Amino acid sequence: MRAHSPGPTDTTPMLPEGLRDLLPERAARRRAVARAVLSAFERYGYASVVLPAFERESVVARGVGGAVRRELLRFLDPDVGDVLVLRPDMTPQIARLVATRYREHPGPLRLAYEGSVVRRPRGRAHRQRQLSQAGIECIGFAPPQADVEVIVATLDALHALGLRDLTVELSHAGALPAVIDALPPDLREPVAEAVAARDRAVWRELLSGDELAHVERLARCAGEAHELAGWRDALAALGHADVVDALGAVAEGIAGAGARVLVDLGELRGRGYYTGVFFQVLADGVGSPLAGGGRYDALLGRYGAPRAATGAAIDLEAVEVALARGGAGADPRPPRVLVVGTPAARAPTAARLRAAGRAVAECDPVDDATVAALVAWEGYAEVLRPEGG
Amino acid sequence: MRAHSPGPTDTTPMLPEGLRDLLPERAARRRAVARAVLSAFERYGYASVVLPAFERESVVARGVGGAVRRELLRFLDPDVGDVLVLRPDMTPQIARLVATRYREHPGPLRLAYEGSVVRRPRGRAHRQRQLSQAGIECIGFAPPQADVEVIVATLDALHALGLRDLTVELSHAGALPAVIDALPPDLREPVAEAVAARDRAVWRELLSGDELAHVERLARCAGEAHELAGWRDALAALGHADVVDALGAVAEGIAGAGARVLVDLGELRGRGYYTGVFFQVLADGVGSPLAGGGRYDALLGRYGAPRAATGAAIDLEAVEVALARGGAGADPRPPRVLVVGTPAARAPTAARLRAAGRAVAECDPVDDATVAALVAWEGYAEVLRPEGG
Repeated sequence: MRAHSPGPTDTTPMLPEGLRDLLPERAARRRAVARAVLSAFERYGYASVVLPAFERESVVARGVGGAVRRELLRFLDPDVGDVLVLRPDMTPQIARLVATRYREHPGPLRLAYEGSVVRRPRGRAHRQRQLSQAGIECIGFAPPQADVEVIVATLDALHALGLRDLTVELSHAGALPAVIDALPPDLREPVAEAVAARDRAVWRELLSGDELAHVERLARCAGEAHELAGWRDALAALGHADVVDALGAVAEGIAGAGARVLVDLGELRGRGYYTGVFFQVLADGVGSPLAGGGRYDALLGRYGAPRAATGAAIDLEAVEVALARGGAGADPRPPRVLVVGTPAARAPTAARLRAAGRAVAECDPVDDATVAALVAWEGYAEVLRPEGG
Repeated sequence: MRAHSPGPTDTTPMLPEGLRDLLPERAARRRAVARAVLSAFERYGYASVVLPAFERESVVARGVGGAVRRELLRFLDPDVGDVLVLRPDMTPQIARLVATRYREHPGPLRLAYEGSVVRRPRGRAHRQRQLSQAGIECIGFAPPQADVEVIVATLDALHALGLRDLTVELSHAGALPAVIDALPPDLREPVAEAVAARDRAVWRELLSGDELAHVERLARCAGEAHELAGWRDALAALGHADVVDALGAVAEGIAGAGARVLVDLGELRGRGYYTGVFFQVLADGVGSPLAGGGRYDALLGRYGAPRAATGAAIDLEAVEVALARGGAGADPRPPRVLVVGTPAARAPTAARLRAAGRAVAECDPVDDATVAALVAWEGYAEVLRPEGG
């Protein structure tokens, strides 16, 4: 026993704040979801890579916005002296990989990944800090086809899991994000916050004249994809014809993909990261988006390998919430058998069942109450008590 | 572009030292190996859990030996002020989980896991710092059956991957590890180092009399399992009858499991962690063990939930080395098709193939040289250039 051996009271808070264990049933569902998503991505030619759990801070900082950069979980490499970080996002890792290992790839390059990212909790308490994602990056393939492809592949993955009634919300970095980034520096963050909070009173205090009209116009452009055509002339007069056309091309490309398509020119998510069309996939009654992504043509250049790129990431936990709401929450594990008896009595039965591919747990002879307790904990489908041996 | 945007020369060292990316073919093999191993573990009733990537330092420090504790990668939680660590081993996490979530489980409790652990590089340069493991823990099930079960399940998993000619080396914490821990404190580490290095000259200088005879006797007890019986009387006279009997029972239990069985009473690996029989699985020509484990009856008590326990972990990278040596190194991914053409020309072909479950990458019209370069990079099994559209 160590000096700081725990008493009975200090065992509860052992898990770090904002992290979670997945017990067997949830763990099995997580693996099944991840596998189905990666299979769907494979059908679109995306090849999965495995990336390390941490990176140099200097590498990640190149690829994430200021807000994420302030929230990085940093640690010092005691052997080399580098500052390292737990990844807050997989895309900068993919960019680093592409810049070092795929420099001569003729493109299109399609990579997929699955893993966890770590973020510091923002806002309300007890928020999860570790998110599980499965995503794709499509590099060096022209818009709008590449943008359409990543959204269609994402929807296909979600449909393959049995999810229906999905909504894709399309936005564009050249719409309100660009207008806000062109404001005087001291106005940008307050206006962005007011717009994100849909707080008109605040942005009306901060802005006036053309700037106010421009922001208000874009903030109002949210609706069904078919409304884009009606907005085109007014938006073209404000210099956003290309934005409307890019959104229109993507909306048309994904029209047959089995989801409702909305557009929102006032969306600010990912400001400073995306450079073109960006999107999120929503499901009724699920508090956070099931997936999101967009075009990030400036990122790879920061790693010395400039290329057009677009990507998407599915939030596996949000998907599980959506599946549970839809009733698709059954334990995906094969039914398991408990074999109770002395080693000699149970061994032949256990061996025979295993050889047939069954999942078999062995147990020494115990009373019925213990067997019942085991079944309650483990959910065994069958209990056998072979005789003899 | 940021101020520290990289020039062409600073892209190479972007990956942190001792870490590695797995490109698609290796990543696919890793996933296939992990899946096969977890399936084999499931057949023995082990249920996989998913554990977070980091833990409180105070929690991990309880469960690892001093050498590992010195090597932890620590970081400060900027929100809560806790010291956190990247896990160096999954077993302390499992112990923490059992103590908090499975306190009332009637046992036997069988848990499996898969994931990466992080260690600081020891010894030679460029050693991997991130290891991928898949393991099992069997809690509250009597020896020797539980010890036999984890070794048999481990061998079964390795056999299921196609590995043959494996050797299990059995050792015991009550043999040389216990004798060294009973030496005067200043002698323990020097003698342990000399024994681990098989440097007789050094330990003969450090020890004399009965202590020297005892260490030498145990260091000589290494050989085939059937030799145990011949050593029994001499070892019983030294107080090790229980060690011989425990090793004998496990050796007998695993005799039919399709591996050569060796015993080594001079093995020190895991000193201070294991409390009974411990083992490693070796394959010819692979520099590090494919798997290892053992009994750790004192660990769960440190988390406030004392229980007998034994476990095993498979090193997935060592397994991949063994598989490659055996020639089983084919790309496990389904053959992929490249469809080249305008969006209108290629879409129907791509959709039809995907609906049939094929993996299809789309590409705009390009010349034959680019197609050849793409095939060389990606290994497409087939290239289609549909006409019309």
